[in-house]
Amino acid sequence: MTAELFAAVDLIAAKRDKHELTDAQIDWFVDAYVRNVIAEEQMSAMAMAILLNGMNRREIVRWTKAYIDSGETMNWSTLGRPTADKHSTGGVGDKITLPLAPLVAACGVSVPQLSGRGLGHTGGTLDKLEAIKGWRASLSNTEMFEVLKSTGAVICAASQTLAPADRRIYALRDVTGTVESIPLISASIMSKKIAEGTGALVLDVKVGSGAFMKTVEQARELATTMVGIGNDAGVTTRALLTAMDVPLGRTAGNALEVQESIDVLAGGGPADVVELTVTLAREMLEASGAGGLKDPAQALADGSAMDVWRAMITAQGGDLSVALPMAKETHNVVADASGYLTKLDALSVGMASWRLGAGRARKEDSVQFGAGIEWHVGHGEKVEKGQELFTLHTDEPARFESALEVLTQGYEIGSESEISQRLPLIIDRIV
Amino acid sequence: MTAELFAAVDLIAAKRDKHELTDAQIDWFVDAYVRNVIAEEQMSAMAMAILLNGMNRREIVRWTKAYIDSGETMNWSTLGRPTADKHSTGGVGDKITLPLAPLVAACGVSVPQLSGRGLGHTGGTLDKLEAIKGWRASLSNTEMFEVLKSTGAVICAASQTLAPADRRIYALRDVTGTVESIPLISASIMSKKIAEGTGALVLDVKVGSGAFMKTVEQARELATTMVGIGNDAGVTTRALLTAMDVPLGRTAGNALEVQESIDVLAGGGPADVVELTVTLAREMLEASGAGGLKDPAQALADGSAMDVWRAMITAQGGDLSVALPMAKETHNVVADASGYLTKLDALSVGMASWRLGAGRARKEDSVQFGAGIEWHVGHGEKVEKGQELFTLHTDEPARFESALEVLTQGYEIGSESEISQRLPLIIDRIV
Repeated sequence: MTAELFAAVDLIAAKRDKHELTDAQIDWFVDAYVRNVIAEEQMSAMAMAILLNGMNRREIVRWTKAYIDSGETMNWSTLGRPTADKHSTGGVGDKITLPLAPLVAACGVSVPQLSGRGLGHTGGTLDKLEAIKGWRASLSNTEMFEVLKSTGAVICAASQTLAPADRRIYALRDVTGTVESIPLISASIMSKKIAEGTGALVLDVKVGSGAFMKTVEQARELATTMVGIGNDAGVTTRALLTAMDVPLGRTAGNALEVQESIDVLAGGGPADVVELTVTLAREMLEASGAGGLKDPAQALADGSAMDVWRAMITAQGGDLSVALPMAKETHNVVADASGYLTKLDALSVGMASWRLGAGRARKEDSVQFGAGIEWHVGHGEKVEKGQELFTLHTDEPARFESALEVLTQGYEIGSESEISQRLPLIIDRIV
Repeated sequence: MTAELFAAVDLIAAKRDKHELTDAQIDWFVDAYVRNVIAEEQMSAMAMAILLNGMNRREIVRWTKAYIDSGETMNWSTLGRPTADKHSTGGVGDKITLPLAPLVAACGVSVPQLSGRGLGHTGGTLDKLEAIKGWRASLSNTEMFEVLKSTGAVICAASQTLAPADRRIYALRDVTGTVESIPLISASIMSKKIAEGTGALVLDVKVGSGAFMKTVEQARELATTMVGIGNDAGVTTRALLTAMDVPLGRTAGNALEVQESIDVLAGGGPADVVELTVTLAREMLEASGAGGLKDPAQALADGSAMDVWRAMITAQGGDLSVALPMAKETHNVVADASGYLTKLDALSVGMASWRLGAGRARKEDSVQFGAGIEWHVGHGEKVEKGQELFTLHTDEPARFESALEVLTQGYEIGSESEISQRLPLIIDRIV
């Protein structure tokens, strides 16, 4: 038994009593936890103290660094091109990563995108891409490098060796009511992105009913914290606050969102998805120092982004010649009156899609690739009585009832003056 | 697997977000923890949330009840006499339980006193009594009843079957920085006292440097909370706030305090120990509805309290004909100037006694029965240069240096006008 620098209980008590933890204390606490010198019950008590009493900027930066130091880091300098990545805090219908990664690559910047799976009402990028026959989310570091080198973009699962301290602490927070902490959320996101070795990072921090952050103030605090951590670690980082009061695009669900992404890469697709994709692409290019090489709108128009997409998916085993999975059953919802769609709530749509089978309740559950929801009318648009408003997709028709239960709470038809106020798509930019 | 009423994480999140827990939620949370459905890390996160966000009176009463319901309860109705008990939150030189239990018994009220061992700078009643050759702290329920029936008083260790939930949670709090919570301290103390089956209870809540509660305000909050819990549970409960800025009596240490207690039972002893013992005895008699049977001061003067003491100790195997243990080595501290003892700090004296070997650093450590400290001059008394101020006792002379290091910080000699303000012995009474 080697002598330990500190006693866990003293550091928990310090944070409980609103004191700052020193760099040495933070380094020791995370490392001792990884070494199993600090027990699960001690880390969870510390997490609750951090959640309730907070951490200052220096403490958050150091806590993040301790996560990074618990594992290995990646380096893309031999690619010979700048790198940029994007992280979204998660939203309903948020398929932006799919068209964005090949789009940025088509403009001259490599995109090493480590993504996750969905839990709850927001979908996961890897779940969506797995709707493509043969596509593999898990790559070795060598495979990841090869795909990135040959196509310019790669979207895959994070290796277990990146920030393993965060992996364990996240699982612990999940069962101890300590997820909702800006310092801990920031450290969790940023440690993986910094360890991933990207040169530039753009954060898409969602705001609204369908997002984790319900208010602009919370989202701004989270964004500012993460931008600070990234820049302190030498990663050029900026954030956009974007709307998630209304769902993005016209579909939520795995295969449905892959199709919508392909529509965008083909030069079409819903205007909001196109606008957000192009805006984020410009931010990534500029942050990586490669702004002005080629404009993203042009790369969508000339098919070069689609070329990267095809190469990238194919390099990971995906077969784009096979039709995307479709659900066995569909159910249409029609308008019972004429007027305007005065409300379309992101959370309700997300919950409905989840209940149809597109998402999972527990990590070990599987998802239905074909399940999800299409909305044929957007927020504020005109509606005729009898018009199709929604199409629900699922393999299990028993799910329609519970999905409709939540969906009907999420939309309203009324007069033009009753159209609910909505957030602008791009709310703010934080550098 | 049976269906559970709640999910642990939801209840932790509720307390984290400053919501009240319902009675059903509290009952379930404690019971599910005992059943190992709730993990240690979940209970520690809840404990930290309770510590930082508090509990209202109803929640504390219910949390305490849940501890009690986790084990068995005792009942003394067949004794045919009223019962009363006392609990002290712990102080330096606080040997009051030793003369108090036989004194109250001598006045007609039975005293089923469950006590603990010392940890840190305050001593434990069981450690002190074990300085008497042959005395046994652990009794079966039947033995406890027999001693109480035949002598009127019993002082012994709490059985493992009383409030076992608290036993586990206390051990968890000890390593997770969640000891210092008034709701959790109150529940821990009161659950054992209520399960013990006493009819009346007097709490001696210590205030000052040598006590757990450093301020009168903290002590009053703790006392008020505990009095409320006791009365709600049908135990007539009151509390005294008493001074612990200066140590009690003239000795700290195990055998040293037994001797001082015997002095008090013989009609002598330090004035403050006598005053506090008699005051607490009157409170216990009155609370148990037996006030006026016999006055405690008289029971000290006429030897009847000493008779109960002898019977009680003998019934538990103690041999009072054997001399008390004495430490192998002593060291005297003499005054280096004339004047007044302007300061005598309880914490410093307690720490010095601990360092001499009278206390333990870890639960598994043993104590030295002869170790401790005598102060020959009290706070505010006159001192002549060269006069003996302290005698330090230990079996290991290597301990003198570290004991003196802390002791010399704890006293000062100066002019009469420099005598430090001290708390009155009895600060307040809470019913």
